[in-house]
Formats: sequence, C-alpha cells, structure tokens
Amino acid sequence: MFRTHTCGELRISDIEKVVTLSGWVQRSRKMGGMTFIDVRDRYGITQLVFNEASDKELCDRANKLGREFVIQVVGKVSERSSKNDKIATGEIEILVEKLDVLNTSATPPFTIEEKTDGGDDLRMKYRYLDLRRPNVRKNLELRHKMTMEVRRYLDNQGFLEVETPVLIGSTPEGARDFVVPSRMNPGEFYALPQSPQIFKQLLMVSGFDRYFQIVKCFRDEDLRADRQPEFTQIDCEMSFVEQEDVISNFEGMAKHLFKTIRGIELTETFPRITWHDAMKYYGSDKPDLRFDMQFVELMDVLKGHGFGVFDSAEYIGGICVKGAASYTRKQLDQLTDYVKRPQIGAKGMVYARVNADGSVKSSVDKFYTQEVLQEMKAAFNAEPEDLILILSGDNCMKTRKQLCELRLKVADELGLRDKNKFACLWVIDFPLFEWDEEDERFVAVHHPFTSPKEEDIQYIDSDPGRVRANAYDMVINGVEVGGGSIRIHDSELQNKMFEVLGFTPEKAKEQFGFLMNAFQYGAPPHGGIAYGLDRWVSLFAELDSIRDCIAFPKNNSGRDVMIDAPAQLDPSQLDELHLIVDVKEEEN
Amino acid sequence: MFRTHTCGELRISDIEKVVTLSGWVQRSRKMGGMTFIDVRDRYGITQLVFNEASDKELCDRANKLGREFVIQVVGKVSERSSKNDKIATGEIEILVEKLDVLNTSATPPFTIEEKTDGGDDLRMKYRYLDLRRPNVRKNLELRHKMTMEVRRYLDNQGFLEVETPVLIGSTPEGARDFVVPSRMNPGEFYALPQSPQIFKQLLMVSGFDRYFQIVKCFRDEDLRADRQPEFTQIDCEMSFVEQEDVISNFEGMAKHLFKTIRGIELTETFPRITWHDAMKYYGSDKPDLRFDMQFVELMDVLKGHGFGVFDSAEYIGGICVKGAASYTRKQLDQLTDYVKRPQIGAKGMVYARVNADGSVKSSVDKFYTQEVLQEMKAAFNAEPEDLILILSGDNCMKTRKQLCELRLKVADELGLRDKNKFACLWVIDFPLFEWDEEDERFVAVHHPFTSPKEEDIQYIDSDPGRVRANAYDMVINGVEVGGGSIRIHDSELQNKMFEVLGFTPEKAKEQFGFLMNAFQYGAPPHGGIAYGLDRWVSLFAELDSIRDCIAFPKNNSGRDVMIDAPAQLDPSQLDELHLIVDVKEEEN
Repeated sequence: MFRTHTCGELRISDIEKVVTLSGWVQRSRKMGGMTFIDVRDRYGITQLVFNEASDKELCDRANKLGREFVIQVVGKVSERSSKNDKIATGEIEILVEKLDVLNTSATPPFTIEEKTDGGDDLRMKYRYLDLRRPNVRKNLELRHKMTMEVRRYLDNQGFLEVETPVLIGSTPEGARDFVVPSRMNPGEFYALPQSPQIFKQLLMVSGFDRYFQIVKCFRDEDLRADRQPEFTQIDCEMSFVEQEDVISNFEGMAKHLFKTIRGIELTETFPRITWHDAMKYYGSDKPDLRFDMQFVELMDVLKGHGFGVFDSAEYIGGICVKGAASYTRKQLDQLTDYVKRPQIGAKGMVYARVNADGSVKSSVDKFYTQEVLQEMKAAFNAEPEDLILILSGDNCMKTRKQLCELRLKVADELGLRDKNKFACLWVIDFPLFEWDEEDERFVAVHHPFTSPKEEDIQYIDSDPGRVRANAYDMVINGVEVGGGSIRIHDSELQNKMFEVLGFTPEKAKEQFGFLMNAFQYGAPPHGGIAYGLDRWVSLFAELDSIRDCIAFPKNNSGRDVMIDAPAQLDPSQLDELHLIVDVKEEEN
Repeated sequence: MFRTHTCGELRISDIEKVVTLSGWVQRSRKMGGMTFIDVRDRYGITQLVFNEASDKELCDRANKLGREFVIQVVGKVSERSSKNDKIATGEIEILVEKLDVLNTSATPPFTIEEKTDGGDDLRMKYRYLDLRRPNVRKNLELRHKMTMEVRRYLDNQGFLEVETPVLIGSTPEGARDFVVPSRMNPGEFYALPQSPQIFKQLLMVSGFDRYFQIVKCFRDEDLRADRQPEFTQIDCEMSFVEQEDVISNFEGMAKHLFKTIRGIELTETFPRITWHDAMKYYGSDKPDLRFDMQFVELMDVLKGHGFGVFDSAEYIGGICVKGAASYTRKQLDQLTDYVKRPQIGAKGMVYARVNADGSVKSSVDKFYTQEVLQEMKAAFNAEPEDLILILSGDNCMKTRKQLCELRLKVADELGLRDKNKFACLWVIDFPLFEWDEEDERFVAVHHPFTSPKEEDIQYIDSDPGRVRANAYDMVINGVEVGGGSIRIHDSELQNKMFEVLGFTPEKAKEQFGFLMNAFQYGAPPHGGIAYGLDRWVSLFAELDSIRDCIAFPKNNSGRDVMIDAPAQLDPSQLDELHLIVDVKEEEN
C-alpha cells in the first residue's frame, strides 16, 4: 500500500498515529540539524521532518531529494511547535522514520507554484507540469463539479442524457466542418458535429421528451483567444414546451449552479431584455449588466446646432459615467484613442463634465449653449461630478457597437467589471433573419430550425427583416453563456424558411432531407438551449481565457504543442484512405 | 402550456381533475357511439374517451386521427369501468372536452410497438421512429441511468472527470486511426483517439490522482456485429496504487451498478482466475461462469491406445455435460458439424455417454477398454446420465478455443446462458507479450505501458513470453466488460519495453516522446481500467447486440443509413484541405 492518508488529510486529532504518505517534493529546507520537506499531492501539503541526530543516514538521503521527486514516507504524526495557518495540515508534521524514492525528477522548466515563471508557450509544451499548479488544477476540479451538478439538476428534471454520433455528415450551412475520410467508403467523408442540433431534434421526434448531453463539438474556424477547435456544449432539448417553459427550467439550472458551485443564492427572476432594447441601450446582444451606464440617444438634443460632425450623423448617443468628472485630459485622450482604434473605428469622442455647481463643460462648447447642455444633462439624469461621453456616426448599429466598447472600457478602468460579481439576464426576441451583405441574401441569425413568432409570420415573405424569432440567449457578465430557441415542428413552415434562406427545394432535401422526412411522422412542438461549458466554467473560475479550464487546449494555430499534433501521416495511411496531399512548397 | 400532466402520471386519486395532455396517437377504436384513443408519450399511455352523444363534432374529429398524430386534449379524469392492469394509468380515462391536432403523421413504415414488423434495415433508416418503441427507448434510459450511477460512484470516491482532447496525433501502434485533415496546417492530420490512454497517464503525472471520463473512442476497423467505429468507454486511472487497489475499487463500482441498475446485491468477492487457468479450464480469457463444464485434459488417459487421432494429438480435452446422455445421435452429429465449421476448425468430436449402470459407451469404443473409459469417467467425476464431449488437436491453444466454442454451444442449447443471471470474475496475470507470427516479433498483449510483474522482470530479455503483466480484465457472462493494468512509471523500464517490442529509440521517441519526457519529471506509480460502456449496457439490458443500446448506430459498412453518412464532399472543401481523392472507378 502506497499510503494510509493523503497529503491534505492529517489533523491534530491524528497525533501519534504512524502513517504512510506518498507525494511530490514541493520544497525543502535545512535548519539546525533538521530537514523540513513539504510533500504535495492533489489534496494538500504536509510537512515532513528528518532529524539528523536521530538518523543521520535518513536525513542525508532527505537532503538529496530534488524538487518534484516522488517519495513515500512512513512516520509518526506530531504536533507542530509553530503552526502554519495557510495549509489545512498546518497543525501537524510527520517525524519520518522511513523514506523511499518512488521516482526521481529532472529540474522542471518552470516553478510549480501558483505564481510561476513559465511563459505561456513553455507551460503549454509542458502542460502536464503546468497542471500540477494548484490554481490550474482547481479550474478543472470546478469544471468536474459543475458538470456533476448540471447532470444532477437535469436528471432530477427527467432529462435523459443520450449520446449522439461524432461521425456524422457534412452540412455546408454554418461554420466550416472538420471532416474524416472513410476508409471503408473510399472517396467519402464523415464530418464532426458543430453541435448535435439535428440529432436532438430527431430525439424529440422519437418522443424522448427531455434530452441533454454534455458533448464535444467541433468548428474549423480561424481561432481567437476565446475559441478552440473542439469545445464542450451542454446541449438540451424539450418537447411540448413554449419559450417560457425552456427559460424557466434553465433559469432554474443556472440558479442551481450558482448555489452549488459559487455559493450564491439568486432569488430574483433574471431580467429579460429584448434584442432591440439590448442594442439600443447597450449596443450589444450580450450586455454586461454588472453596472449601469445605459446609452442615451441625443439626436433630438444635439443635432442641428452647427456642429458638423453631429449634424451629419445618423446616430448620436452617449453614456454617463457617475462621479468621473475628475478624469484628466490625458485619460480622456486615451479613451478617444481607444475608440479610434481600427478594431473599433469611431471617428472621435465628445465629452462633457458636470461641474459641482451643476453647469456643464464640454469639449464642443463653442457649438452649444449652456441651455442645450443642460438639456443634455437632463437626458442623462446627470449630477455634479458626472462625466458624459458621446459618440456619433453615420451608421446607427455600428456607432452603438463602438459606444458599447467605450462603455466596457470605462467600466474596466473604474473596476466595475468585478469577476466576483455576477449579472445574469435573458436576451429575447432576436430577429429571425439578418441580411448577409456578401451573399446578398437573408441568413438565419440562429439556425434554419428556429421558429418565428406567431404574430410575425405574416411578414415572412414581405419583410423578413421584421420577423422576430422565438429565440433567447442567457448572458452573464457580458458573456453569452447559452442560447436556444423554439424550433419549427411544422414541415410547411420549415420549407418556407428554407425558401426565404435561398435554398432550392432540391438543396434543402439534399442537406436536411432526413429531418424533413422525420417531421412528416408526427413531430411534437419542441425547443431547447445549448450552453458553452468552457465559457461558463471560465466565468465561475474567474478566468480571462477558456483555455485555462481545458486540460489540454490547442494554441491559436490549432496545434497541441505538447503532443505536436497535427502531424504528417505515414504514406501508407494516405494510400489506405485513397488520398493525395496537394500542398505547394510555399504553403507548408 | 401544452400539458398539465404526462401520459403516464394520472391515477385514481386524480379523478374529477380537468387536465391537459399531449402525446402521440397509439391506437384508436370505436365501440357503441364511443371512440377510445390511447395517447402515448415517454412516460406512458392514457386512454381518452370521446362520446358521440355528448359532442358529435368532437367525436368525428377524433375518428379522423391517424396513428402517430400528435394531439393535445383537455378533459376530465374519470374512473374506468374495466381497469387495465397492464398500464400504470389503467384505472382512469379522460373524458375529452377539447382536442387539438398539433401535428399530423404520414403512415409509419412499420408498426411502433414493442414487437414490430420492421426489418433491421428499415428500422435503421427510420431510426427516429424505431426509437419510439418502448423497448428501444428503455435501453437508452438504462444507459442514462447507468452513466449517472457510474459518475455518482466515482465522484464519491474522489475521482475527477477530466475531458481529454478528441483531435490528437496518430500513433501507428494498435488499431487503425480515423484521421482529420487540418486546414490550418496544410498536409497535416489530427487523429481521433482510440482511447485517452496517454492523456490519462499524463494526468497522473500531473498529480490528478484519480481520473475518470465517459468518453467516445474511435477505431477504424472492419466491423463485426459487436463493433462500432465509435464507441464509449468508461476510462479510469489512479495514482499510488497497486493492482489490488484498482481491482477492489472497481469491483465496488460493479457492485454499485448491479445494485442500483439491476437491483442485485452481490455480496461475495468476485472470483479471480489467472489467464493461464482461464485458458486451461475454459479455453478463453473471458470465460462464461454462469455454468460449470470445466475442461478436463485427457492426454494421460486417452493417448497411446491405438486411436490414431488421439495418439498424434498435442492436446486431448473434454467437457462433461451433466444429465445430457439423452442427446440423440442427430444432436451429436449437429454438434460435430458445428465444431467442424471453418470458423471453429475442429477435425471432429468424440463423445461418450455414462449409462444408468455407470458403464461408459463412447463413439471410439473399439480403441478403448471399459477400464480406460472408467478412468476417463473418473477424471470428469462423471455420473450416470452425463455426456462427455472430447476434442483433440495438434495445437493446444487452438484446440482449447475449439473446445470453448463447443462448451458455449452446448450451454446455449441447454439454456444455461440465461441473460437474467450474472457471473462476474477477474482474469489476472495475463502474459505481457505475445508472439506475432506475421511480424515475427513480440507485441504487447495490452499496450506498451503495461508493467511486468516484479518477479518476472528477470526474464524480460531471455524469455519475454514468460513475463506476466500486472493486467486484469473484468468479465461478466463471457463478455470482457473492462480491462486495465498497472502502468510502467519508470523511464528505464519503459525504454526496455520499447526495445523488446522492436522499437528503435528514435521511433519510440518520435511516437511517445512527450510521454517519455513527462516521465522524467516525477511520474507516480499508477494504474487504471477502461470499461466498454456499450457492452456493459447491453448486458444489463439483456441485448444481443450493442447496437440496440446506441441511439444512432452505424451499420457493418460504417454507414449511418438514416443521415446517409459518410458522403462525398463539396470540391471546395477538398481544395481548402489541400486534398485530392484518388479512387479508381472499380473501387467506388
């Protein structure tokens, strides 16, 4: 037996027990004929004591142990003279009688501590060592706990976890598929699922009533900080439900997770905001509601006073930053530079301070009377010491998005985006279609199976852009953690959707024929939701990137640098698959 | 709201309630001015009553409902005059006041009943309808329940579920990999994991201590009845353990599953049998112990008496079938034909009956005296009315396997392989290596990371075939449900393994370099096990094929006939991947 206890388990009540521990050498120090070694495992750290006076040979061997050696010791639990409050075993230590080295260790390329000297690349290459750091491990422990609680909640609600296939067919809609050549069917390919969307709908047709799955999904997209080629979804679907049923059930799940994982009791119903209002007041379909700063539109107030920029604008709007009148000119210039960055693209920023006496001083005073400025102040309900920041532009939606970036930036600066604070909401009433400039056609905002609102179906031919969907997103702290919709269960309406989306009947049949067939045999009304597990774990773990809650993530080129994948295949593998690789020299 | 109750929920205590139900029309019948309709959902069946006398229009509409129409009804719960004991709602019926058709249905291609008239191919093509059949759905409900219980047990034991990547690198060892071309890394490929073996070992190096994952795995093998290209594994690994620790922990899990899923309390420790004995007494490394019929070796008794077949044999052995002396000549001839089939390959079968008076009558009486036959009878402890069946051959292992097939066949015929009865055991002490005739080298019986028994390491160079492994399989009813081993954690021993397996140091480094690197930084002693979830669910669900416990299985050509995958890609997809498909006409 390698151990009687873990390294996090022994307490003052265990004194005098003879115990066996196994673990890694965290650090060691010598002090007056004694050697102290901290031994570590997943559960904690325990202090070992070797006494030169009582066993010189043993103490000499202890002195030779390097960091990260794997050792096994037998010894007696003893009370510590000076307690260590920082660790759970801090009241005891082990007087070691026997020491075995189970494995040696080369010197790690970076220190295995909460704060490490290892850079990102090095830590990814040696991910197995990075995972030894307690903070990294804790993210994965939280992830485990969260999936356990998701399953517990959904199981209690009568949901069945059903595994859907990973080797499926490729569908050109949506993002790019990863594909898998089939050796048994030469020239043909499977695709990896971007989501189990169609299968979960088929399960509803099958009468499974309540389905869920925590499942890997795949998208071959160019990667960004918050994207991985493989990611994990909490995928759910219910039959005989309306939007309200799905929202209330999954608001319940969110509250369950907040309570069990973060110890936060959320008693209030989550606010709901329409997509239209979210764009109007926050310039985003995933507003961060940890703080206020709603947009105020100022076209009526500020247009037509001779300030050319505003006079030619299609949109003028601003935010009021409470108590920030003390922002210096330099800080304001930096904010202006920020919104003028090409990624954001504003032309400039106008600001105004509310003085202690209530008067307003703005950067465009020469165009506006104090009367107009007071009118503006009133529009914001601004008070002395407040700062008003204004953007304008010739495209309403674009300017709102710029103002959204400004709002978030200011909130960051003021420390209003506290990771330890959570603001949850539902965004509802999304548009069903959006116009794709490039393809010059309407595309589905969510996917082609999302149902239109009953009262908007009348506009589906005449004014598709006006049709709202039975679609909803759950947003936490400005992050879309999940989204879903009530699906179309009627074949005719589904065919109409395909028509508006520009599918010929042949193409619709080729791509979704089996779903259309299935819908002929009594499809129930149904709807569902899917959560991005990685994102949600990141939120709960207060991380900046989803990468830190994934055991073995890939880098921005989709590479796993630890195992060095992807890689070239053995030519015989390509032969068996009837494939020829056609890469020009300059590309590789 | 679509329903106030499910179709399996209402009881006599609900009488007089006005309820709303939604579901599928299972069947309908008219009787004296009344129409009775059974409405079905996942939870059960409820009888609806439409009375022509009280609402003719409503009743007329009910009469027009077809099978599998989706309906919603409002009505009053009423006591049934003649109860139906077969369904949980059999004491009540609904007097319908309102009927809405939520969706119509075309006539299904087969009947949606426990016993269906649909053949395998048709049911697979319309799998979404096949899944409506209660027996098929119950298999998936059992699967859900089983994974919930696995997670509950392992979570309680401190195991963490950690997701390992699906897009990994290809390793030529083992079965064939499915591969995934990387668009971002032209000419390079990911592979789908055959198991997370290496990642779970890395997690042990990372100090995760106890890992598990219920995870999809992939093997591009030619398919058999019990194989699918994607299958699900319960994958587990533990640190600081010896074989005994792993076995006892996972025997605990098996018992937990038997109790919670099948309601069977297994109090006894599972028997353990060495691989050597399993082969000797049952001719199989996964013996079915629901019945006895151990092999008895007869070389000493039957060789050298002038019967040429036996005199030239390397192995003579048999089984004693209790009370089967009444087997007719025809039945015995059929058994002989069975073992002579090319898949089994025996040359013939000798039989002997023990008569009521204790004398033995055999098919080779002219070569053996009654004295020798009595000696044989004693070797089997045979009694009057027993039947002895004997095979021989010039290859001991091959003949044992033939005898194993005979043993199973006879047990089948005698009804001794009752699916409702379970016999669990551990097979231990597997050989570490086996000789591969084709490659003319030793290969690993499990995988190259399996550790040899301490006391056998001395033979690793001189006599590899003699080295036993710290490896173990869990067998239930002749099915290997899981297997694992204690791994090598010492780099030097691992290098030695690669050497015996014929890897050059360069090749070992190329394929497993990152694992070898990891092992330099303090790898703990560790070991684990992996279960085939599909197989285990099939056993508990008493199924003949794993296909019936998979929601959307593939056929023997690896095709999903429902969605028609795999399929040819759009040429632009191939271009993006820098691939050319090279299939000659005759192949496609």
